[in-house]
Amino acid sequence: MKKFAVILAGCGNLDGAEIHEAVLTLLAIDKLGASYSIFAPDVNQHHVIDHYKKKPTEETRNVLTESARIARGNIQPLLKYDAGEFDALVLPGGYGAAKNLCSYATDGPDMKVNDEVAYAVMKTRSLNKPIGALCIAPVILAKLIPNVTLTIGTDETTEKHVESLGAINIRSTHGDVVVDQKNNVFTTPCYMLDARISQIAEGAENLIREIMKKFQNSEV
Amino acid sequence: MKKFAVILAGCGNLDGAEIHEAVLTLLAIDKLGASYSIFAPDVNQHHVIDHYKKKPTEETRNVLTESARIARGNIQPLLKYDAGEFDALVLPGGYGAAKNLCSYATDGPDMKVNDEVAYAVMKTRSLNKPIGALCIAPVILAKLIPNVTLTIGTDETTEKHVESLGAINIRSTHGDVVVDQKNNVFTTPCYMLDARISQIAEGAENLIREIMKKFQNSEV
Repeated sequence: MKKFAVILAGCGNLDGAEIHEAVLTLLAIDKLGASYSIFAPDVNQHHVIDHYKKKPTEETRNVLTESARIARGNIQPLLKYDAGEFDALVLPGGYGAAKNLCSYATDGPDMKVNDEVAYAVMKTRSLNKPIGALCIAPVILAKLIPNVTLTIGTDETTEKHVESLGAINIRSTHGDVVVDQKNNVFTTPCYMLDARISQIAEGAENLIREIMKKFQNSEV
Repeated sequence: MKKFAVILAGCGNLDGAEIHEAVLTLLAIDKLGASYSIFAPDVNQHHVIDHYKKKPTEETRNVLTESARIARGNIQPLLKYDAGEFDALVLPGGYGAAKNLCSYATDGPDMKVNDEVAYAVMKTRSLNKPIGALCIAPVILAKLIPNVTLTIGTDETTEKHVESLGAINIRSTHGDVVVDQKNNVFTTPCYMLDARISQIAEGAENLIREIMKKFQNSEV
């Protein structure tokens, strides 16, 4: 059974992992016959947003602690991720990916990537294992993997930003998966586009399916 | 297009709505061609649990505000739910259903149901519209609907409790839906059993499908 690692960025689209993308990534992995382990960096969130009023609050919340809600407690600090033990790494989206895993939301292309996230991605890349990213999470790969081909959907500002980092954006729509065969990178736009939840399920499932196909092709 | 109302109980299996059950209920509704609106009572949670350490914290969180994370902000206070405007009502599970929507977690069969939840359920019932409940949420229906037939899975203590309230428990396994045709009540066990996430998807989808079938039969 193939083993996926999934990195979460909190719990909620405005300050953490996008919950639908996270859950539907886990569902796709399980449905397609693989297993998953969930990780998150043990750091405070960039901030906390009241998702009803859509305004920042004075609270402090921890990325690992909040991600544990999506993981039903079955989660480990990202520091414990060992790329050698897994077959693939996946990063769902949500503003948390751009606020907690890196600083893209505030710094644009001058972003920094959290050290543990950068190490996890680069170690996985160095072993040439597949890396998947949904929604806005591909910006992290744009920063870390030279000349990567990916999709962030059709948003022109984000497209300019990832291209200024050396990435190539392939415009895409619901359910599309852009595969960079050379870098072993798989991306899909999800909520970078206006979407219904079943379109998110389709995108996540197609992404995991493409990674599974890559395993089969590698084994031939 | 049929319109479902979904009541959430927060965001996280230990103190709120079970996130997988909530998301996969929304997915099933959308996938099967209906629409959903999300509601939650505007009350403080019974308590807050750190889902990583699995221990209570000193925080105060609001059920509506936290549920908004799953709803991506598209949520209304339960007070605004008008049963006449919807075709069906669904309650996903999680401890939040037993701690925030009613007091079953602390009071057992001596539980009280939150007034707004009780009104929403009873008004929907009085209009003979379908009511669905997942996981532990059927205890609320056991309390409110005389002699309802339902499932809370196979847990003997919970079974005794719902039977002491006058309900009939049908033992069930993954994906099963118990239909009480007379009361128009649909229940499925989900995480009341040890389950993989794809089994939760199956249970939620089967439940919504049974409700959709009921609509078709009623229109014949």
